[in-house]
Amino acid sequence: MKRLQVAALVLFFGVAFAGALKAADSSGDWVGQLTGPFDSQFTAQYDHVTLKAAGSKLSGTWGAYALTGTLAGAKADLTLTDLKTGKPAGTLTGSLAGDAFSGTGTLIPARAVTWKLTRAPTPPAKPKTWDYEPTVFYGTYSAAEPPILHIFPGDTVNTRTIDTAGRDASAIRHGTGGDANTGPFYVEGALPGDTLVVKIVRLRTNRPTARQGSRFNPNAVTQAYALAAQYDPNFNGEWKLDPEKNIATLPPSKGLPHLTIPMKTMLGCISVAPPGEEQYRGTELGVFGGNLDYNDNVQGTTLYFPVFHPGALLGMGDAHGAMGDGEVVGTGLETPVDVTFTVDVIRGYASSQVRAETNDYLISFGVSGSVPESIQLATTQLAEWMKKDYKLNDSEIALLFGDVLKYDITELVDPHFNVAAKVPKSVLATLNK
Amino acid sequence: MKRLQVAALVLFFGVAFAGALKAADSSGDWVGQLTGPFDSQFTAQYDHVTLKAAGSKLSGTWGAYALTGTLAGAKADLTLTDLKTGKPAGTLTGSLAGDAFSGTGTLIPARAVTWKLTRAPTPPAKPKTWDYEPTVFYGTYSAAEPPILHIFPGDTVNTRTIDTAGRDASAIRHGTGGDANTGPFYVEGALPGDTLVVKIVRLRTNRPTARQGSRFNPNAVTQAYALAAQYDPNFNGEWKLDPEKNIATLPPSKGLPHLTIPMKTMLGCISVAPPGEEQYRGTELGVFGGNLDYNDNVQGTTLYFPVFHPGALLGMGDAHGAMGDGEVVGTGLETPVDVTFTVDVIRGYASSQVRAETNDYLISFGVSGSVPESIQLATTQLAEWMKKDYKLNDSEIALLFGDVLKYDITELVDPHFNVAAKVPKSVLATLNK
Repeated sequence: MKRLQVAALVLFFGVAFAGALKAADSSGDWVGQLTGPFDSQFTAQYDHVTLKAAGSKLSGTWGAYALTGTLAGAKADLTLTDLKTGKPAGTLTGSLAGDAFSGTGTLIPARAVTWKLTRAPTPPAKPKTWDYEPTVFYGTYSAAEPPILHIFPGDTVNTRTIDTAGRDASAIRHGTGGDANTGPFYVEGALPGDTLVVKIVRLRTNRPTARQGSRFNPNAVTQAYALAAQYDPNFNGEWKLDPEKNIATLPPSKGLPHLTIPMKTMLGCISVAPPGEEQYRGTELGVFGGNLDYNDNVQGTTLYFPVFHPGALLGMGDAHGAMGDGEVVGTGLETPVDVTFTVDVIRGYASSQVRAETNDYLISFGVSGSVPESIQLATTQLAEWMKKDYKLNDSEIALLFGDVLKYDITELVDPHFNVAAKVPKSVLATLNK
Repeated sequence: MKRLQVAALVLFFGVAFAGALKAADSSGDWVGQLTGPFDSQFTAQYDHVTLKAAGSKLSGTWGAYALTGTLAGAKADLTLTDLKTGKPAGTLTGSLAGDAFSGTGTLIPARAVTWKLTRAPTPPAKPKTWDYEPTVFYGTYSAAEPPILHIFPGDTVNTRTIDTAGRDASAIRHGTGGDANTGPFYVEGALPGDTLVVKIVRLRTNRPTARQGSRFNPNAVTQAYALAAQYDPNFNGEWKLDPEKNIATLPPSKGLPHLTIPMKTMLGCISVAPPGEEQYRGTELGVFGGNLDYNDNVQGTTLYFPVFHPGALLGMGDAHGAMGDGEVVGTGLETPVDVTFTVDVIRGYASSQVRAETNDYLISFGVSGSVPESIQLATTQLAEWMKKDYKLNDSEIALLFGDVLKYDITELVDPHFNVAAKVPKSVLATLNK
């Protein structure tokens, strides 16, 4: 939701709530819920609903439907029509009790449903900044986790993450590790089918040390190398971090007597709640994001998540002071961070997986069970993005990608694989949008 | 071979050839050939041989062996000893006729061989620059192709390539296309087991147009996308190239009314002859290089090839004015180029596949039948490079790669796949070497 829309809503609600509860009061923004024996695994469909009351007449939109009907006393009769085709989509009957509608109905093709309308929460007069000190960290991705804070589009949050082992800035351990996340943050106004926009405004390591592994994951090297490798069991992979100078320094070893590298602090995990009732471990990744381990998920990067549950349920954690492509040793420079982010919502559009945007690139992630499939998913989602936002046809997209596409292999070692496909914004800037 | 070594050789040969052919004349550099029923697919082993004659006594090295023996009249008796272990490695007997030795012998463990020693060619007093206007282009990679020019380490060659369809700067067609290459160039002093070093000194498109495809290869997108794609059969993918301004411009289409991109001219194909008697089509790629399609094989890049045949047999072609990662539409901006390159030889070391070096990275290619395997091969070869040149142990390499490794997916669509693994030279500059 854009700032201007928020401001307009505030104004609108101010007017709508001025009178006592009567027919005209049903005007405004609602959250519609249709529950029934749908064909998919989901038992509930959520939609943004806008009602306009004129006497006993109701009009408006319910997601992809146009809505007409009457509210006679407490009794509501609604008719839904497909916005695109103009064809009948269903009828709903029910009643208003307090500030919520509920009832039953039939969708076309014939499916019995129950329905509810609840008032969309009123955003604050102007965006808020929250300081959230986390006290609970969930080691799984699941819509069942209770939100720790409700925020609105436009709001900013200052918070912290723990490292992959569950340790905070003071090395105090919270839980058993495994990429437990800070959150979930419930973003008001985000409904399934929307896109949650998260901009990482600031990202800063908050502990002077970071641990890193020093053995290759078998996906990264040949079997012969993996079998022959002679790893030093006493090798010290504990880096010293200097966020002021933005460098990390390794304790001396024989071959690396003075290794100092530039830091590029990133969020390994960032997620919304996964679809349906699925629950995944913290190290997992999928269409909901999670352990994407993209080393350009840094300060300044914006992420776009498909929303699967009301409120989106944003979480984040598993930060790294730096990390190479593919996380070939199973870790980056694992460390907790202070993070500041803002959120926004794009209504009525969701891509199939997570997308991102940096200063230089539009990026599409492809998470799957294999690198080749991840390449296909990432390229395809990026192509769909071009089709939608730049109105390119398939020939134009193919040619453009043939010239300027870049791939990043971001995650090779966790339960699923992640490849990023990206196009330079410098080239896109020359196109129509 | 380094320049200084070349200079020393020149001096040495100058002295060696001063007298008439007698015992002392056998001093100098030779090419040794051992032919026999080896366990591998190769019937001949080539080695750099250096002889020193003192009266009838001979001493020196034969590849990885120390050599001692006698030359009595024309009769030679040689004993080989493993340079590393000091253990007996074989005996050879034979004779000198003209300026070549030949004979028979036994290697340990017992294997009957025939052997030859021929004089190593004498490099010129100073490196030469050749202008080679190609008249023949081979559409395959094979050691059977006759060399079109013999050059020495340190030499520079100015030549041209044709485009993938076989067309030259004037759009005149040579052959049937299919990535036919300019070459092979025979590099004197390059023997199997050595590394051929090729620096691309200059690369410049020499035709004002480049053709590009505009349909995705099925490896790049999902099957659903590939099936649904509606390609425009009349789409015009013929770019105008401006090498002065270094830009390429596409004819206007509805969605791309004024697409102009920066050129990054690259060599799609660059190769040595493949191992043994294998013959591959021009579009193939493998341990010998070939259609690597790396979009950083540009002016300034140096390539390192394992040598499989005497002279290495260098070829190149299939240039692109620009190309995205993975060659997702099966082409880049296909066009002929003027190319200037220099060659050098590193004796006695060859990596398993091709390597490269740019201003910013050391790069290892992994060519195989799948992207996951290519990732493993590229990472492993890069690890071996670190082990050899920077004396890092496995823990140090793993940790270093975990921080700074980058991957490029270079070739997704040709018979084999190519992934590049790379480490930044800025970080390596801080290490011991």
